[in-house]
Amino acid sequence: MIKDIASRKSRFPFMRNSVGLDIDLIEEIYGKGSFECHLPNEGQHFIFSQSRPFDLIELEQLLQSVGWSRRPLKRVKKALDNSLLKVGLWRHDPKFPRLIGFARCTGDGILEATVWDVAISPIYQGSGFGKKLMLYVIKSIKEMGIKRITLFADPGVIDFYKSQGWTLDPKGMKCAFWYAN
Amino acid sequence: MIKDIASRKSRFPFMRNSVGLDIDLIEEIYGKGSFECHLPNEGQHFIFSQSRPFDLIELEQLLQSVGWSRRPLKRVKKALDNSLLKVGLWRHDPKFPRLIGFARCTGDGILEATVWDVAISPIYQGSGFGKKLMLYVIKSIKEMGIKRITLFADPGVIDFYKSQGWTLDPKGMKCAFWYAN
Repeated sequence: MIKDIASRKSRFPFMRNSVGLDIDLIEEIYGKGSFECHLPNEGQHFIFSQSRPFDLIELEQLLQSVGWSRRPLKRVKKALDNSLLKVGLWRHDPKFPRLIGFARCTGDGILEATVWDVAISPIYQGSGFGKKLMLYVIKSIKEMGIKRITLFADPGVIDFYKSQGWTLDPKGMKCAFWYAN
Repeated sequence: MIKDIASRKSRFPFMRNSVGLDIDLIEEIYGKGSFECHLPNEGQHFIFSQSRPFDLIELEQLLQSVGWSRRPLKRVKKALDNSLLKVGLWRHDPKFPRLIGFARCTGDGILEATVWDVAISPIYQGSGFGKKLMLYVIKSIKEMGIKRITLFADPGVIDFYKSQGWTLDPKGMKCAFWYAN
């Protein structure tokens, strides 16, 4: 078990911290591979998980809180099932963990990966959670062997992505959207 | 069989034409659901297929002929296997059909679909094949129940997409790309 923790820490060095919850407790509640997201202002605990199931109503409320449109839950469920990767960021509570961050990714698993539905609850914005979430998403996608990640950035988050090493509109590219009538 | 042809024609009215190859012959060579792409300048026959297997070397040559970078064939194979949709446009020959157009799509099958690797061989550009290819791709994605399609457009094809009803950079969005070192 000690080896497990050490190996996970070396895989995600940006998450490393000396004080935290017990790894067994984390995995029991949030699923295998989940781990604590440490930030300087402690008191509460926050957990990244790729395996804890989502309450779809809670997920959609989070996405709507940052301005995304409402979507039928049945379609959201299918979209999650067919995503390459889905990451939840949870405010720890042994009985009622609360979803405060989310991102997912679609793609072919080898050449293309596109990130969707990135959200940090407005209450927790400005504390570094968004950056840690994206670092974890990038790391997880890279581990699939994918060398290029794409997303469509809203105007309000362009500087956020730029500051984290994303290239905006490379070679004069543009986003093209086609909408059904 | 007559009903089959009629039903297919009504599904793809933009492909309709009075003269063409026998539908049984087309399906025998190009797979189930394939059909002829008619254009005013006849003489040769062109077929759309979602099921005829690709020769990966031929596919990569086509993509490189329009300026895409070379990619390892093993990765291309996995990417094709994991794509939601892959469309080949073939110049008909009963023994040696030649791939002259291609597009594929990744996504979650319900909310998001992203189009990649759109190519028409330079020899056949400017004849309307690109437009017909994209109409077919859109139609096929719509049939999955998807209401929004996305792609990253190179500067040289921005007007092409705009003229076909795609919205460029909606609400000030930008393409964001992240590249592994």
